[in-house]
Amino acid sequence: MTSETSTTTPAATAQASQDLLTRRYATLGSHSPLFYDKPLELVSGTGVWLTDSDGKTYLDGYNNVPHVGHANPMVADAINAQLRQINLHTRYLNSRVVEYAEALLATFSGELQRLFLTNSGSEANELALRIARQHTGNTGVLVSDFSYHGNTTSLAELTTGLKVREPFGQHVRALRIPDATETDDHERLLREALMDVDAAIASLQESGHGVSAFLYDPLFSTEGLVQVPDGYIEGVSTRVRAAGGLVIADEVQSGFGRIGSLMWGHQMYSTTPDLVTLGKPMGNGHPVGGVVTSADLLDEFGRHNMYFNTFAGNPVSSAAGMAVLHFMQQEDLMAQADSLGGYIAGRLATVAAGSPHVGSVRGRGLYFGLDIVEAEGSGPAPQLTKALIESMRERGVLISRIGRDDNVLKMRPPLVFTRQNADILLEQLTESLAALKA
Amino acid sequence: MTSETSTTTPAATAQASQDLLTRRYATLGSHSPLFYDKPLELVSGTGVWLTDSDGKTYLDGYNNVPHVGHANPMVADAINAQLRQINLHTRYLNSRVVEYAEALLATFSGELQRLFLTNSGSEANELALRIARQHTGNTGVLVSDFSYHGNTTSLAELTTGLKVREPFGQHVRALRIPDATETDDHERLLREALMDVDAAIASLQESGHGVSAFLYDPLFSTEGLVQVPDGYIEGVSTRVRAAGGLVIADEVQSGFGRIGSLMWGHQMYSTTPDLVTLGKPMGNGHPVGGVVTSADLLDEFGRHNMYFNTFAGNPVSSAAGMAVLHFMQQEDLMAQADSLGGYIAGRLATVAAGSPHVGSVRGRGLYFGLDIVEAEGSGPAPQLTKALIESMRERGVLISRIGRDDNVLKMRPPLVFTRQNADILLEQLTESLAALKA
Repeated sequence: MTSETSTTTPAATAQASQDLLTRRYATLGSHSPLFYDKPLELVSGTGVWLTDSDGKTYLDGYNNVPHVGHANPMVADAINAQLRQINLHTRYLNSRVVEYAEALLATFSGELQRLFLTNSGSEANELALRIARQHTGNTGVLVSDFSYHGNTTSLAELTTGLKVREPFGQHVRALRIPDATETDDHERLLREALMDVDAAIASLQESGHGVSAFLYDPLFSTEGLVQVPDGYIEGVSTRVRAAGGLVIADEVQSGFGRIGSLMWGHQMYSTTPDLVTLGKPMGNGHPVGGVVTSADLLDEFGRHNMYFNTFAGNPVSSAAGMAVLHFMQQEDLMAQADSLGGYIAGRLATVAAGSPHVGSVRGRGLYFGLDIVEAEGSGPAPQLTKALIESMRERGVLISRIGRDDNVLKMRPPLVFTRQNADILLEQLTESLAALKA
Repeated sequence: MTSETSTTTPAATAQASQDLLTRRYATLGSHSPLFYDKPLELVSGTGVWLTDSDGKTYLDGYNNVPHVGHANPMVADAINAQLRQINLHTRYLNSRVVEYAEALLATFSGELQRLFLTNSGSEANELALRIARQHTGNTGVLVSDFSYHGNTTSLAELTTGLKVREPFGQHVRALRIPDATETDDHERLLREALMDVDAAIASLQESGHGVSAFLYDPLFSTEGLVQVPDGYIEGVSTRVRAAGGLVIADEVQSGFGRIGSLMWGHQMYSTTPDLVTLGKPMGNGHPVGGVVTSADLLDEFGRHNMYFNTFAGNPVSSAAGMAVLHFMQQEDLMAQADSLGGYIAGRLATVAAGSPHVGSVRGRGLYFGLDIVEAEGSGPAPQLTKALIESMRERGVLISRIGRDDNVLKMRPPLVFTRQNADILLEQLTESLAALKA
């Protein structure tokens, strides 16, 4: 050993990150998406805090996958213990997957009492579509006109919210989701939107595809956190079922208490979907997803298909999922998300009132957004939105954006976010907005 | 505390397993597949050994997912350490995924120098098909007539080796894979098999689907470890490419040194595929998969699609994959699989010679099979095969079966299998076969 300590200059770490980027391009290619003009190299995290390769810390206002916090020790302990005990597929009996399925299904109501486990939200939506198509004998799907449900071929065919090369499916109809924040005449908005649904269903039937499913994110996140008028989801669901179709709620973003007052986004509406798909926060980053459905639909699919998924339902993935549920309960995270969400919404209304660049305040619980506009009453400002996100990064807060016009600030922190964290985010956001004026 | 110790009788544990089964049916349903007439509840494992809820130990002669052994401490340590540091998606830079990609790609040759990471083999095959279809502008696919490549819709449409409800795709042609063990006239076998390929390609072109890909498992595992005549894979590849299609090697079963002398199954043939898909053993049970391809194909896909996969390439999955590669290298597992595979093949030939119920000896490296027949020179014996598997379980060795006729014993142990382990398996197999005669 020597008495020298290694010192790293900012220039040296910048060069190291550049080298890493070059090596990434040479292995994963240059199209694999990265955030920020100058990509951010993150080396460690704990709770809602992340540290980059320069040693700078960031408040995480963006990532929902580390649901119970970065490097959550309860999740790490559960995974670690199980890894050292046994990790196998479900063709042998093991209690972990059953215990987890029971705990998870206890958070659902009605007929949603059976579970398929998968390794991702994409696999979950893919499976839900297979079930719906087989059950109905139809192929047609209704989705929103700015949505994303996964990266498989079947899901690419119905992707409207990002670039895919597959042609938009002839069996798909895209619905414009009505935004209740854009008008006071909710009755007319609802009536017109449901007429669109009727037309889409008629078109699917006339073209011979029929209706297999309506697939929706209860928060309409990708769309920019659209707030639908009362009765919309119920109206669509009634019409879809009348046409013989099923309703699939994609809870990959809206689920697991994200909205605070309710465990599942679909519970905001007075109709229960036939299938619910799960993903992102389910294992706090461990690859796990699922489809929750009725005994009838699961049994029908199981009778006609040998469905097996090698990794899904293994005891380690189950232990990860169980630890997330335990931690949420132990720390009462839903109640915290509910009250903190209310507090943030109130503060954001003040922020909006104080800046000409902020339109609507959107979201619920710990998923909130701000419309960024050129000036009061004017149109979307994607460039300003991007500038705000970069400014927030400089100020040590990570957020992103969503929406048709790329102008809705997307704030969706780990569920362990506290009021003190929120105050930092809100203060930096206020300053970033003020700096825009300068 | 009392001085009493809890004792568990066999009857009590049998009842506990029955209760667990009932609870499993009430959550995962009764169609989720289970091995054995009486399902086996496994509670712990280490290396090649597993323990059931009665405390009985089993030699694992079946599971390839725990590639470097059950509860491998190097893998558990790597996952555990990374979980406590950071676990995030690839839209931030992190060195782990790049280091893993470099190490993995170093095992490939030719143009196979780019990597997409996924969470499963199904996701990998799904992505490979998307790439092939987009690149070629065609939809047609050639597969073997008894194969399985995953559980998505696109893969269900080309599944021939297990029950799915989706109609067999009009854009798919199933090839009978020629079996060189069935005849000495390999030249004729090859010629006729390639005529089938020509016919299948012509049919795809005439029907307007064209050829996007030939998708094959280099070991033809599901088919029953079919040994193709020399020149078959090369001949199919030439024809598929002449028709504008790509070649996809599904290495989910054949890869990662399973065959001993080579890291990848496709390296047995003198043609390099355009895409290679990975899964099962890649993370020793941690959900990870991937697609390896050329820079051109990756870039073309990346330019036209915003492909993102939330969990894929996260630093924990990358650490798991890296630990598998490290452990393989440290323990020289490929060389061991190669020499042990040779030893086992020799011993199996003796077993075959000593039993009227054994036909061909199949497989390579640590993936081997035995055709079980009614009597010498007669047809497949699926019932005897099943009886052998149940008998082996009673004798404390886990194996399974594959093949069109469900009559090929499937032996595919963790790669840490030793000669001593092999001797136990072979001894119990000999006794099980002898007991059949009784």
